[in-house]
Amino acid sequence: MAKDIEASAPEGGEFSAKDYTDPPPAPLIDLEELTKWSLYRAVIAEFIATLLFLYITVATVIGYKHQSDATVNTTDAACSGVGILGIAWAFGGMIFILVYCTAGISGGHINPAVTFGLFLARKVSLIRAVLYIIAQCLGAICGVGLVKGFQSAYYVRYGGGANELSDGYSKGTGLGAEIIGTFVLVYTVFSATDPKRNARDSHIPVLAPLPIGFAVFMVHLATIPITGTGINPARSLGAAVIYNKDKAWDDQPP
Amino acid sequence: MAKDIEASAPEGGEFSAKDYTDPPPAPLIDLEELTKWSLYRAVIAEFIATLLFLYITVATVIGYKHQSDATVNTTDAACSGVGILGIAWAFGGMIFILVYCTAGISGGHINPAVTFGLFLARKVSLIRAVLYIIAQCLGAICGVGLVKGFQSAYYVRYGGGANELSDGYSKGTGLGAEIIGTFVLVYTVFSATDPKRNARDSHIPVLAPLPIGFAVFMVHLATIPITGTGINPARSLGAAVIYNKDKAWDDQPP
Amino acid sequence: MAKDIEASAPEGGEFSAKDYTDPPPAPLIDLEELTKWSLYRAVIAEFIATLLFLYITVATVIGYKHQSDATVNTTDAACSGVGILGIAWAFGGMIFILVYCTAGISGGHINPAVTFGLFLARKVSLIRAVLYIIAQCLGAICGVGLVKGFQSAYYVRYGGGANELSDGYSKGTGLGAEIIGTFVLVYTVFSATDPKRNARDSHIPVLAPLPIGFAVFMVHLATIPITGTGINPARSLGAAVIYNKDKAWDDQPP
Amino acid sequence: MAKDIEASAPEGGEFSAKDYTDPPPAPLIDLEELTKWSLYRAVIAEFIATLLFLYITVATVIGYKHQSDATVNTTDAACSGVGILGIAWAFGGMIFILVYCTAGISGGHINPAVTFGLFLARKVSLIRAVLYIIAQCLGAICGVGLVKGFQSAYYVRYGGGANELSDGYSKGTGLGAEIIGTFVLVYTVFSATDPKRNARDSHIPVLAPLPIGFAVFMVHLATIPITGTGINPARSLGAAVIYNKDKAWDDQPP
Repeated sequence: MAKDIEASAPEGGEFSAKDYTDPPPAPLIDLEELTKWSLYRAVIAEFIATLLFLYITVATVIGYKHQSDATVNTTDAACSGVGILGIAWAFGGMIFILVYCTAGISGGHINPAVTFGLFLARKVSLIRAVLYIIAQCLGAICGVGLVKGFQSAYYVRYGGGANELSDGYSKGTGLGAEIIGTFVLVYTVFSATDPKRNARDSHIPVLAPLPIGFAVFMVHLATIPITGTGINPARSLGAAVIYNKDKAWDDQPP
Repeated sequence: MAKDIEASAPEGGEFSAKDYTDPPPAPLIDLEELTKWSLYRAVIAEFIATLLFLYITVATVIGYKHQSDATVNTTDAACSGVGILGIAWAFGGMIFILVYCTAGISGGHINPAVTFGLFLARKVSLIRAVLYIIAQCLGAICGVGLVKGFQSAYYVRYGGGANELSDGYSKGTGLGAEIIGTFVLVYTVFSATDPKRNARDSHIPVLAPLPIGFAVFMVHLATIPITGTGINPARSLGAAVIYNKDKAWDDQPP
Repeated sequence: MAKDIEASAPEGGEFSAKDYTDPPPAPLIDLEELTKWSLYRAVIAEFIATLLFLYITVATVIGYKHQSDATVNTTDAACSGVGILGIAWAFGGMIFILVYCTAGISGGHINPAVTFGLFLARKVSLIRAVLYIIAQCLGAICGVGLVKGFQSAYYVRYGGGANELSDGYSKGTGLGAEIIGTFVLVYTVFSATDPKRNARDSHIPVLAPLPIGFAVFMVHLATIPITGTGINPARSLGAAVIYNKDKAWDDQPP
Repeated sequence: MAKDIEASAPEGGEFSAKDYTDPPPAPLIDLEELTKWSLYRAVIAEFIATLLFLYITVATVIGYKHQSDATVNTTDAACSGVGILGIAWAFGGMIFILVYCTAGISGGHINPAVTFGLFLARKVSLIRAVLYIIAQCLGAICGVGLVKGFQSAYYVRYGGGANELSDGYSKGTGLGAEIIGTFVLVYTVFSATDPKRNARDSHIPVLAPLPIGFAVFMVHLATIPITGTGINPARSLGAAVIYNKDKAWDDQPP
């Protein structure tokens, strides 16, 4: 509601003349990039960020299930867990922190779906996209493995934080919910990194991690009751690899 | 508490001379606007934003009611739902994201009450206001329809997320609560888009989506226990059209 | 942790030479101020802000007590209330919004304790401070009265949102907790409006409402279990006037 | 995701030439610093900040345990406590406020682990680091002592807010969880204070307290169920000194 007036006043509500320059599309294959240290620094940053993301979120899920487990705690304590609200905060908040920390190094993708979307929009080269996705998947597997190592007894008992369809929802419903959830996230990401906006207002990119983190928080609030929310394929893969049960694999979003 | 000193120091606590220019009032009917692509882009943005807003929030409400339903879950799990706090976060957070994303395209109204308020203040033309409100209502109906399609069994059982008066409150109380709630929202919106403020401090508009989203969050915390909070007429209409029960229609705020 | 480096690099960790100008202290009695429209506009803004603050927060408290009341709801629904966390959010979030909205008009005090603190620091004149405090108290009484009008049946049954000492705490404990809570709030306010900081970094005042709102949120989390948190004397007065029971009056912080 | 494009457009994705100047490393021992008032002001700020941090968070923990105690309250009220989510908010939010308030005075360390990390990176001198850590430990002890003074009856009954390992976790697990948690915090702090980033974008340091506070919030969500989260050694020490039970001492992170 804010930008409406500010934008329309000087420019008459229309952007007929381009007052910004689109960056040239990233080359499909840029072999020269492979010789630069900045690429490998970015891949390492993606690996560490995905590892920390998975570690914190899966540990929160396991801790919550442990606390709300009536066979372990008394009925009173069943309410003291962080609840779905706390789990959604853990996912959204970690994305906020990690995008903030790695934005200047790797662009702060963390999510293979985001990397793929930015590759389709020609913002990153094919080589960079492939290396990022490999780093993200490895990081996710290590992060979930770390939680399993720390809490082995509870990890298996509480389903390993893997995404599974709740009873009473069809696979089509789960797929649809995941598609809309991923759309909300990618829409926010593209909106926050739009060069047209940056030209008009240089503060937008600085604030970008906050709405992106909030988008993740919102999507989890809405879809945790349906599928556990698998909008991050790396998170679903990591949990499924380590948990390694048939149900989790079958239900994983494609 | 911050602006007080900053503002009073250079200007003596008084703004006698106008150091800003009010934008001219938007024309009542501006036929030329109809030929511009930017108007239709804005209408499409309003449609998509309202659709996503309704989808996420109604899905959260249905998911919460499903989880706290004692006939489905055991008593322990009844506490694991997101609660009214989670629902209020879903509404406030989605407004924050969507205003952030669409502010540069359509002004980020999303709510017909906001569009109507900005029309009264001559910030938008009549044509634009009518098209926005139509797009918002269609978007709301599609968004709720999507939730019904995904969760048909639960949707009907849990009242479809439609606004209904809680027992023990009169219609007058509900109406009064809605009036104050809408006032808080519109007051925040006008405060955030005040051109006098923008002239003094160019960062205010960038930060505007955050207090607007928080205002929605606050109003929902206070009025969900009374009416379910219908400060967004598009949300009430969408839920009522799809749910299509007599009680929801009668209780809808005018 | 951020400012450390930035500040020490150019200035050697020391601010020996004053690179800013302290605004002159506000006069004790400035009769000329009484003739200015900006003073009355500020007083009206304080009145409306305190009214909205009290309305939203007390309505949240009453709605929460209604929902967690076992004699009205079934045991299942007892968990669905917003809880103390939701009440703390309501107080903190409303302060964030209202300071953001009224900062440019009245300085966004809302709280008589803040007005008194700023008067002691000679930031506001005596006349302005007295008028502000009167407006805040009237606004608080009207806000609580509005809630009582809307929810008369529940209002009396649930204690009217008045501050009362919980069982098991002495009056000295309550007083001590209120003193520290008010100190945290006033410390944050003075830190955010420090002219030395503004000189170094012009963005600080824009962001000020966020930490001030968070400070209110934190203090409520810690002291609601003890006294219900009366760091805002206007809120305590408004609730006590309308509720008008002996216990609330006796326990009110001085 | 935002900085990627902005940064790569003007500089070709590479920062080959240094466009910033690293501040010189702080001297190991700088006796001249001892004669400056700014050092003692900073030490006092650290003392007050740690005192307030401990007071608010331990009071929240005690208040929560009191409210969810079935022997005191009825079963209904057991759910009304703030829960682990509220405790995590109290820790994260206080760090946000206190870093915001003291960043310009002392750098806003509050945590001996952060002071030690910044000493290793040669951002603070040895003398300053030692004085900071002493002030932080004294502040923590005073803060917890204040809570004990106010709530002596409840303090002892509910374990004094001291960190203890939950049943079912080994000491190695607790140690590992604390190491990763401290890593997340220190990683965010260094990321936010990176002079390379500040050179590119002067707004980053202003926003730094928000992600740092969120990092503390996230780590607490994940590790409270395991160890109660002792990433702040001063907090663990303060609680252990005042509570003074064998179990708390043995379990304290090294």
